[in-house]
Amino acid sequence: MARRTSHRRERQDAVKHTHQKPWRRVTTPYPPLEVLSPEQLARVHDAALGVLECLGLEFMSDEALDILDAAGAEVTHETGMVRFPRELVTHAIAKAPSSIELTARNPERSVVLGGKNINFTSVSGPPNVSDLDGGRRPGNLKDQLNLIRLSQSLNAIHMLAPSPVEALELPANSRHLDVCAAYATLTDKCWATRPIGRQRIEDAIEIMRIARGVSAEEAAQKPGMLANINVNSPRRVDKEMLAGLMALGRAGQPVIVTPFTLAGAMSPVTVAGALVQQHTEAMGVLAFAQMANPGAPMIYGGFTSNVDMKSGAPVFGSPEYVQAVLAGGQLARHLDLPYRSSNVNASNAVDVQAAYESLMSLWAVCLGHVNLVYHGHGWLEGGLTASFEKMILDAEMVQMMCEVLTPLKFDDDSLGLAAIEEVPPGGHFFGTAHTLARFDNAFYAPMISDWRNFEAWEEAGAKTGTERANTVFKQLLAEYEAPPLDADRREEIEAFVARRKEEIADRGLDAA
Amino acid sequence: MARRTSHRRERQDAVKHTHQKPWRRVTTPYPPLEVLSPEQLARVHDAALGVLECLGLEFMSDEALDILDAAGAEVTHETGMVRFPRELVTHAIAKAPSSIELTARNPERSVVLGGKNINFTSVSGPPNVSDLDGGRRPGNLKDQLNLIRLSQSLNAIHMLAPSPVEALELPANSRHLDVCAAYATLTDKCWATRPIGRQRIEDAIEIMRIARGVSAEEAAQKPGMLANINVNSPRRVDKEMLAGLMALGRAGQPVIVTPFTLAGAMSPVTVAGALVQQHTEAMGVLAFAQMANPGAPMIYGGFTSNVDMKSGAPVFGSPEYVQAVLAGGQLARHLDLPYRSSNVNASNAVDVQAAYESLMSLWAVCLGHVNLVYHGHGWLEGGLTASFEKMILDAEMVQMMCEVLTPLKFDDDSLGLAAIEEVPPGGHFFGTAHTLARFDNAFYAPMISDWRNFEAWEEAGAKTGTERANTVFKQLLAEYEAPPLDADRREEIEAFVARRKEEIADRGLDAA
Repeated sequence: MARRTSHRRERQDAVKHTHQKPWRRVTTPYPPLEVLSPEQLARVHDAALGVLECLGLEFMSDEALDILDAAGAEVTHETGMVRFPRELVTHAIAKAPSSIELTARNPERSVVLGGKNINFTSVSGPPNVSDLDGGRRPGNLKDQLNLIRLSQSLNAIHMLAPSPVEALELPANSRHLDVCAAYATLTDKCWATRPIGRQRIEDAIEIMRIARGVSAEEAAQKPGMLANINVNSPRRVDKEMLAGLMALGRAGQPVIVTPFTLAGAMSPVTVAGALVQQHTEAMGVLAFAQMANPGAPMIYGGFTSNVDMKSGAPVFGSPEYVQAVLAGGQLARHLDLPYRSSNVNASNAVDVQAAYESLMSLWAVCLGHVNLVYHGHGWLEGGLTASFEKMILDAEMVQMMCEVLTPLKFDDDSLGLAAIEEVPPGGHFFGTAHTLARFDNAFYAPMISDWRNFEAWEEAGAKTGTERANTVFKQLLAEYEAPPLDADRREEIEAFVARRKEEIADRGLDAA
Repeated sequence: MARRTSHRRERQDAVKHTHQKPWRRVTTPYPPLEVLSPEQLARVHDAALGVLECLGLEFMSDEALDILDAAGAEVTHETGMVRFPRELVTHAIAKAPSSIELTARNPERSVVLGGKNINFTSVSGPPNVSDLDGGRRPGNLKDQLNLIRLSQSLNAIHMLAPSPVEALELPANSRHLDVCAAYATLTDKCWATRPIGRQRIEDAIEIMRIARGVSAEEAAQKPGMLANINVNSPRRVDKEMLAGLMALGRAGQPVIVTPFTLAGAMSPVTVAGALVQQHTEAMGVLAFAQMANPGAPMIYGGFTSNVDMKSGAPVFGSPEYVQAVLAGGQLARHLDLPYRSSNVNASNAVDVQAAYESLMSLWAVCLGHVNLVYHGHGWLEGGLTASFEKMILDAEMVQMMCEVLTPLKFDDDSLGLAAIEEVPPGGHFFGTAHTLARFDNAFYAPMISDWRNFEAWEEAGAKTGTERANTVFKQLLAEYEAPPLDADRREEIEAFVARRKEEIADRGLDAA
């Protein structure tokens, strides 16, 4: 009876979807891998507090400077430089929660950011998009919508990072309304937005609120979106980012603070030095976020990698990146904050390099207890291109990692002693009752891995994994169904977007 | 201007060598990743001892049965079945050393198998060979020799596993002499041989001895080679494997015992069940090895993976494989023995699948403290093909893993505080003294990763990582130089091979 049910479900899945594990929350059963000794961790933390105390950060916002001044930081209004007494930093950061729940409009897709939870997003923000059929092309609305649909369909994606690719044909000052409306209607998962200025954030929050059908107060108490603030490393935070950060905090939505510390370019040429600077910048801005909105939910972001010293090109998924991700986790946990990092690579094609650099990143984020993995699916070419095939490749690798994080079954029956007794030396286990009872779901079933023998594979066209990913993404798009949304809410979103576009056309977008 | 310089530098690099880290011993600074709780570990161990006690293993060798009988095992001579009292097993295994040093003919290439040492080999034993130029073809002498040369040139390879591809045009009963002579002359690293029968082992040991210029006694005291025994799972050990095992032990050379436990085929369909069977078979044969030659060096081998239940095809580099490798490490350490596992994949092409399945394996072997990683470079298609491009892809990934295992520098200077002070907010670190002093060797320099921007990459031919690997292997072969070997020893090897070929032609190869 159980088998028939499971068969029926599988057939349905097969009609609807290629092999996918169901959407599920993912936690790791393993302790974090630590690359810093306790002494080294203390040394980075202490050095970063020292930099905040002696050198400080530049805040390019008068409103932010006033808040910092009032909170007790040493503010030089003329230059925007802010120095932080040590206790001010640690006391401020201690006010933030150590774990955050994001509520999706479909509550079954809500996520927890913190502790041993690991959540994988879609790609965020490339200017270009590519697939094998059309090659590399500038971002556009059609591809953006298809990437959003694919992000809804792929169960390995827990939530969507902002704008999988830019829709460059839309007006820059109202484009955010279109992508937020697309997120609110094409997916029922949580999604993030870009924190450029106050109004973009407020628009995004309003659209999220309408889609969930809750009041502003409810949305603030049960946040449903977040945004990522990049520090203009070294040691500068720009006005629009700060405006976005403050708007998020006022509305109770979490902010990620991510220094952009490429060793050798925007930070010292050593991983240790880049970590000191990452920690300096993250702590300074996170402390400010608490001064602006005490108790606001926030996330420690790490993006430390290095540049290729010969060309100056950024390097991703390297051994240095792995070590920085692991160390960043130790620093975030030292502050008792959720941790964000990324699934990155610097390849120009969906080739072996894209696969190994991304998988290096994925092992690092899983072993480093990264709670939110930005660019989890589809990032290519150091973030300059969103790739449809890479979406599928990443989904395969993410699913595999999640299976590695699933504890082995160890009940009496799993040990298989009766089966071992049943099969004579030199025999085989294909026909044992133990095998037959587990035939359907014994092992991980891949999306693109092809395990047929060479002859069968060759006869089927000798397709590479990348070519198979091309087939899978098209199939998923063909099968895509929008998640249900009340007609009232859909109309309210459309009306809000139309009204805001008129206002922006009349008065411009207030960026402050 | 910058482009011309970069062109010139590329040409120079092309003349010298592609980027390689130097050959070095690799140890891990991290604790092993453990997938079994202490209770689960005890349960597998206890269950395996129980199977040895109640069901036992089949030994297809009268000589072995006599040794087992004399040592106190319960032997049924008619069937070859042997049951082992528990203490007999654990007492026998306890006699083996926990760490083994293999001495290379170039002592600087000697390796340590045990503890936190991780050693990567070349591919062993496929019937086919491939590269992008010639496609997939049957194994042959020319490709075999080139794979051996490449294994010498690649610094990521610590030692050579037996026969990177079969030379199918040579007579089967003397082929082992040719490949051993090639190993002894084309590489100064340690190499392994295949344990099929007594005489092949004795021939291999003699060639190793001559190449090192030592006596048989010295070679036995300081072993220089090893061989891998596969169990014919389930629970059967064949005559030729046992003859090879005994010959190795008599000559003081280490043996690896590796059950071939594909879950769902030759072992139960669960990972837990397959581990019980792996541990049963490994312990039974390892205990026998100690009864035959007390104190002989030996290695616990794991090869547990699963089959695709739909096609029956073996699956490699899967989540199940990762968990089995990690659990196998716990079982080997429980016996205080060195541990062997593999770098595997089931892809039919050097594509994204080959990359991610192999890199899953490589993370598993590093986190599982595998002391000897068989098939470390070049294995493709579940072991049916040795690939030249895969040799390079694996070298890149192995080098990256070894860098991840290299502790971060944390001296005062590495923290870069002076550089952080020197660079103003919004500035950059390219020109600081701290950066300039580390310009050349700051970061991992790849062999095939291409970090140029899209336009430069496209202009250079838009090559995939696999195509770049093709260029690299040809370049390394063009630059190959045989390591120096005394003319006397070379002649002695040639004379030995000639004499043995005559003997084999006259009397055949005694397989017992």
